[in-house]
Amino acid sequence: MASKPSIPKGTRDFSPIEVSKRNYIISIMRKHFEKYGFQPIETPSFENSDTLMGKYGEEGDRLIFKILDSGEYFEKATGDKYLGEKNFNYLNLFTYSALEDLFKRVSDSEEDLDLEKLILEDLIESKNRFFTYLKNDSLVNYVKQFIIVNKNYFHNSIKIVKENTLLKNATFKFNFDTFYVGNFLKSEIYADFLNGLKENGFNLYEDLTSKNLISKISEKALRYDLTVPFARYVVQHQNEIEFPFKRYQIQPVWRADRPQKGRFREFYQCDADVVGSTSLWQEVELVQLYDSVFAELGLEGVTIKINNRKILSGIAEVIGASDKLIDFTVALDKLDKIGEDGVKKEMIEKGISEVALEKVQPLFNFTGSISEKIDKLSVLLEASEEGKKGIEELRFICDTVSKLGLLKANLDLDVTLARGLNYYTGAIFEVSAPKTVAMGSIGGGGRYDDLTGIFGLKNMSGVGISFGLDRIYLVLEELNLFPETVTTSTKVMFLNFGESQAFEAMKVITELRSKNIKSELYPDNSKIDKQFKHAERRNIPYVVKEIVDGKFTLKNILSGNQTAVSLEELILELQ
Amino acid sequence: MASKPSIPKGTRDFSPIEVSKRNYIISIMRKHFEKYGFQPIETPSFENSDTLMGKYGEEGDRLIFKILDSGEYFEKATGDKYLGEKNFNYLNLFTYSALEDLFKRVSDSEEDLDLEKLILEDLIESKNRFFTYLKNDSLVNYVKQFIIVNKNYFHNSIKIVKENTLLKNATFKFNFDTFYVGNFLKSEIYADFLNGLKENGFNLYEDLTSKNLISKISEKALRYDLTVPFARYVVQHQNEIEFPFKRYQIQPVWRADRPQKGRFREFYQCDADVVGSTSLWQEVELVQLYDSVFAELGLEGVTIKINNRKILSGIAEVIGASDKLIDFTVALDKLDKIGEDGVKKEMIEKGISEVALEKVQPLFNFTGSISEKIDKLSVLLEASEEGKKGIEELRFICDTVSKLGLLKANLDLDVTLARGLNYYTGAIFEVSAPKTVAMGSIGGGGRYDDLTGIFGLKNMSGVGISFGLDRIYLVLEELNLFPETVTTSTKVMFLNFGESQAFEAMKVITELRSKNIKSELYPDNSKIDKQFKHAERRNIPYVVKEIVDGKFTLKNILSGNQTAVSLEELILELQ
Repeated sequence: MASKPSIPKGTRDFSPIEVSKRNYIISIMRKHFEKYGFQPIETPSFENSDTLMGKYGEEGDRLIFKILDSGEYFEKATGDKYLGEKNFNYLNLFTYSALEDLFKRVSDSEEDLDLEKLILEDLIESKNRFFTYLKNDSLVNYVKQFIIVNKNYFHNSIKIVKENTLLKNATFKFNFDTFYVGNFLKSEIYADFLNGLKENGFNLYEDLTSKNLISKISEKALRYDLTVPFARYVVQHQNEIEFPFKRYQIQPVWRADRPQKGRFREFYQCDADVVGSTSLWQEVELVQLYDSVFAELGLEGVTIKINNRKILSGIAEVIGASDKLIDFTVALDKLDKIGEDGVKKEMIEKGISEVALEKVQPLFNFTGSISEKIDKLSVLLEASEEGKKGIEELRFICDTVSKLGLLKANLDLDVTLARGLNYYTGAIFEVSAPKTVAMGSIGGGGRYDDLTGIFGLKNMSGVGISFGLDRIYLVLEELNLFPETVTTSTKVMFLNFGESQAFEAMKVITELRSKNIKSELYPDNSKIDKQFKHAERRNIPYVVKEIVDGKFTLKNILSGNQTAVSLEELILELQ
Repeated sequence: MASKPSIPKGTRDFSPIEVSKRNYIISIMRKHFEKYGFQPIETPSFENSDTLMGKYGEEGDRLIFKILDSGEYFEKATGDKYLGEKNFNYLNLFTYSALEDLFKRVSDSEEDLDLEKLILEDLIESKNRFFTYLKNDSLVNYVKQFIIVNKNYFHNSIKIVKENTLLKNATFKFNFDTFYVGNFLKSEIYADFLNGLKENGFNLYEDLTSKNLISKISEKALRYDLTVPFARYVVQHQNEIEFPFKRYQIQPVWRADRPQKGRFREFYQCDADVVGSTSLWQEVELVQLYDSVFAELGLEGVTIKINNRKILSGIAEVIGASDKLIDFTVALDKLDKIGEDGVKKEMIEKGISEVALEKVQPLFNFTGSISEKIDKLSVLLEASEEGKKGIEELRFICDTVSKLGLLKANLDLDVTLARGLNYYTGAIFEVSAPKTVAMGSIGGGGRYDDLTGIFGLKNMSGVGISFGLDRIYLVLEELNLFPETVTTSTKVMFLNFGESQAFEAMKVITELRSKNIKSELYPDNSKIDKQFKHAERRNIPYVVKEIVDGKFTLKNILSGNQTAVSLEELILELQ
């Protein structure tokens, strides 16, 4: 391989500095997660396909990375190598194999064999060969019945083969293909056969699609998010788990999305969820958790936006159409940009009635403190039972958070916040980066009342939040908030002047390391210039040049200062 | 989905306690890696297939997990849906499609059309349709030439179709299949065709294997180890890297191995490597690094076994056959069990001569200190230049390590150590768990002189070691060496007596968390018994029952002791 190697699009290598910065963020998240009583779990990178498929909508299914089964699945799937070379259509394979043997025996024989008996024998054998693959007795039965009913047709076919010189001169395989592929597949009988299959729930043509092929050669898929594996974990381990269960999970997920700036095919999710309690104290805690993580990261001006699915349902009731809800919130979100008239124009264009707009008029002047906003909502959603429930939840969360106080973040009520509308049932969260940074959401979450229902465990309410590691990284980078210590690696490098001096250096290095001072020996007795350059390029702040009579010539690379120090002084300086 | 969900075989869920214990080991490794000047990198979970394939031998290739390309690759690969239903063999598809159109036109016509001209026109069209898929002009040309040369044959075929009533009654497709599949594929001409293809570098039958199919539907694969991705990283980023480059990497790898006790399909590797220097100081440091990690983990009695590829080469020279080297080391390794006579018997059975055995007689009494062993080897390998070089390297490493001293581990020379014989060129390491634990190697490594050569960057010597996380975990577990603090999560839980008391509790919890005390509120106002049980099951050591007049009733769950304390006393007790 002569060309420079590369990595798949949408993936990244992380350099030492990048790993250190990412680990800095992760370690702070981890610390706060644990302070709040969340416990870490980890799940496998790949799950059984049926755990993931169908959980993220059709688009999601498409974006799940599937893993090929290992081994010779292709040969395995088609029974043997010969068949493997013919056709991947497993139904054809099945009937083909059964019939091929049969025709061969009948056409080779001079006697008039009992075709029906032979068919049955062959089918039993074929069934055994292919059963594990077909996994479907009724299909086998259908094919069997079909052949028996049409046995006269097959008799005639064989007769023709026997009588036709042109055909007889060719190999048996030729004969078989003639009648099987030519007549059986293409004649009206074949049309009958297809119809019969369809009526019995099989569709020969629709069967051979990528989706079906995938289901035959792949049974595992890479994790698409952490929520579904968490739900699977909870159900699978329900007897070992003490509920309410507060778990956090920091692991990569994979999506076959089209890569673009800031969107990757492999990225970390950092989730904290509680499952098994509907208590609103959890929503309160999650707001505090966001605040305490971002505060320790030094991020000022973060806004934690909150909304409630029930309030959105209430608004949908008031505007008279739940299918217009997204149009409504998207338009309303533009209030700052295009003004009240512009927003209303857009809403009407989308089919929301003027009467409805009058009813939600307060939303066009939706300013003030959270409690003022809640008061406005109370009036607006007076007629909606669900809306009122949402307001009650929101009021408790916001009042309590406000009384407990936040360190640095702001909490704000945003009725246009409609993320996760398909699964969130209560609170909805989203965190915005400080306004000085052009970056979308850096976190989000919400409550879903039936987290584990997809795996058969009902009545398990869950609420959780997620931190967007990649975006938080970019924000900290832009605001220069990574502490310098994060990226300093080795503290001191000893120059190498050959074996005996290197040995003296290594004795001291061993001592320094035992005191947790990151230290290195330059491994080769190279030119001193080269050694110094190495320390500079590595951002190693100190170099020990010489060791004479237990005194170390210590050079500060940045300042250029050079001093002779004792071992004790060296340790003191470096610690 | 009603049945309880599960995870793919060979993978694992990690519970909070397991994650905490694993992170404890990882954090100690990380700390020591950095103390020794190693810097972290991370590479993507999947690499381009050609980065991985062919790097681990044929067996390795088989064990690499391949990822399916996303999208409708199947339909894409076969040109269109109709063809997709027919046959996956792309070569057949190509000729099939070209010929089908052609035969149809000729057999439908009453005139004698210019077949050659038609063939050329059709081939151009077919070529355009399939070209992107075939990506091979010479194949197209070959097929074209073949058809032109054999045009008389095709003429005759068409004549037969036209004259034969039986065949004419069937659909065109039937006719075509008869001659294309029957004659063309099966006749001597077809044999010629296949031979011609082979001579031109195409093999029709060998083409349709799982391996070829995989290459068409998968271009990415999960990381199999950390070494090859590291080599790829070094070559790809060679201009940004300051050499010698000391990197560590702690990430999962995936192998489609048959799962069994202690062998998983997803597991972590923890590697430290230096690349870009041949200095033996690195081998010295790696021995120290092993020692310092295992010492901090509290593991006594770890043995770091060392050998050298060059010594093994020397022994192979002396026994007169390098292909017998593994037989030799495997037999020699049984010395303790089956005695000198047994070992020699086995060696002779494997075809090693008695003369050779006499020459290596010292290895049958290979005891004593490392330097005694080295002296014995010096005599034994006197005639082998490479062997002598190996002894020299070994002597430097062992002498230096011995003079610098190890904290807890033992270093031992083991000439039967022959791991990684295919790639290691110098030192070979393996770490054995303490003898009290029945566990194989818990680490290993060595030097390879041409780490990055596979990616086109020559003369980059590398040396590295790996820690076996799973096995180290099991050893610590068996010896009860995990500190208790590793698994204690929440320190104190406040009982929940309803909203107003819960609010008072949450105020204090917020205060405690700001002092990094892991604390929780029970989220629901449940029965007190239930709340206490939750604390017990979660191993939370303290519960705050009541808060009255700023005094907290603190109960120690283990001792049952209960005291009323002030906030300051509470903090003091919990910190």
